[in-house]
Amino acid sequence: MIIVGELINATRKAVREAMEARDAQAIQALAKDQADAGADFLDINAGVFMDNEAESLKWVIDAVSGVSETPFCIDSSTAETIEAALAYLETKQGSTPMVNSISMEKTRFNQVMPLIKGSNLKVVALCMNDESMPETADQRLAIADVLINELVKNDIPIENIYVDPLVQALAANSAFGMEFLNAVDRIMTEYPGIHTICGLSNISYGMPARKFMNQTLMTMAVARGLDGAIMDPLDKRMMANIITAEALAGKDNFSMNYIKAFRDGKLP
Amino acid sequence: MIIVGELINATRKAVREAMEARDAQAIQALAKDQADAGADFLDINAGVFMDNEAESLKWVIDAVSGVSETPFCIDSSTAETIEAALAYLETKQGSTPMVNSISMEKTRFNQVMPLIKGSNLKVVALCMNDESMPETADQRLAIADVLINELVKNDIPIENIYVDPLVQALAANSAFGMEFLNAVDRIMTEYPGIHTICGLSNISYGMPARKFMNQTLMTMAVARGLDGAIMDPLDKRMMANIITAEALAGKDNFSMNYIKAFRDGKLP
Repeated sequence: MIIVGELINATRKAVREAMEARDAQAIQALAKDQADAGADFLDINAGVFMDNEAESLKWVIDAVSGVSETPFCIDSSTAETIEAALAYLETKQGSTPMVNSISMEKTRFNQVMPLIKGSNLKVVALCMNDESMPETADQRLAIADVLINELVKNDIPIENIYVDPLVQALAANSAFGMEFLNAVDRIMTEYPGIHTICGLSNISYGMPARKFMNQTLMTMAVARGLDGAIMDPLDKRMMANIITAEALAGKDNFSMNYIKAFRDGKLP
Repeated sequence: MIIVGELINATRKAVREAMEARDAQAIQALAKDQADAGADFLDINAGVFMDNEAESLKWVIDAVSGVSETPFCIDSSTAETIEAALAYLETKQGSTPMVNSISMEKTRFNQVMPLIKGSNLKVVALCMNDESMPETADQRLAIADVLINELVKNDIPIENIYVDPLVQALAANSAFGMEFLNAVDRIMTEYPGIHTICGLSNISYGMPARKFMNQTLMTMAVARGLDGAIMDPLDKRMMANIITAEALAGKDNFSMNYIKAFRDGKLP
């Protein structure tokens, strides 16, 4: 499971304040804690700073680079910001980042594709176009199919594509969990070598016991093939669910990760 | 989800002692607690009493019938015992029981089939024959296919068949969880109208954090279509997992069971 730590996101109040105050220590602590907890990538998002989003990301990159070698996941809805952050990262030593995200929304597609074309970047491919948010598995697959083909045509290796089927709120429709899970299963089955990834917390919007519902969906999604997550790696129960679900899904030889997690006190 | 409460089983020391002492109150409490917690059937097993297994079951039936209307699941490896218990239940008012179990083991098959043929009994159909325990999903499906066809040929409606794909220990083979989950999925897909059921606790034999592993497998199995479980309904986390997983699997209209469970303090 590829885990993208989601905590360095300026929509979170403490993070915004730390970025505004250029409090490197606070951001570094978030980076270090997430990497220690098992994050494979660190998502960085400064979208709330409309006027200096790119500058803020560069500052985060500088702050974090000193304390962590975990690659970044550049998270922006603005192609200019992604471009600037990628250019800045090229001047640094460091592992190849992930781009979050491309989609079939025309503007985003047309602006982001040239930035990643032919590269070795990993890319989050959102099942989204300009018409509407997809609701059924079929609708997700229809968008995914076009997007995957376009990415491959533009020389992105299939194993660098992380399709995000988009989780929608169960409170809006009792079928939205199932449709999401079916989409994960079908994407993983119909496009061998590809990955799926997502943030799960939308599922429980408007529901009680949100955290438990999110954790449960994670376990179910692993059972259907999900192999990436944008999440809080400091959520111990969520991490325990992933480790255990992956062992049960046959992805942990001799259950070595599971047993190590138990020895490290990481299982309930 | 059809929940078969597993606690009235004389392999459990306290239950054996209660049966030996003909302590009706103790057995009645177990019956009532499981029914209150959501059991749809009460498994009753007196297999440890080699000499008077059938008599013990009859006593349990008498003891429980006064306090619970939850139907029984007659659990015995001996056809004579099943026959005696079924005959005894026919003399009583009460819902149609479940028989646990038939399999493709020759003796068991030949002796149990005449007892259930053409009946309205629900029946647990174990994926097992005389050769060996199945390890792969393919092996499970091969046995299930013969067994399902035989049952249908003998006028058991498909919706009364609960196929148990047999859970084997993950400690023996890291693929055993996945093979079991794949078998559940395929049985549910390839035989529309059928049910799957199982006891899950074998999965964690020889592993640490057994309870957590069992609970996680339950959530994953619901994601793959499992709709029956032989389990301890007093395990609150397991029940919460089932309620939440079923809501996420699209089996809970307007998430009403989920929300009720939250209001009743049943979710973590």
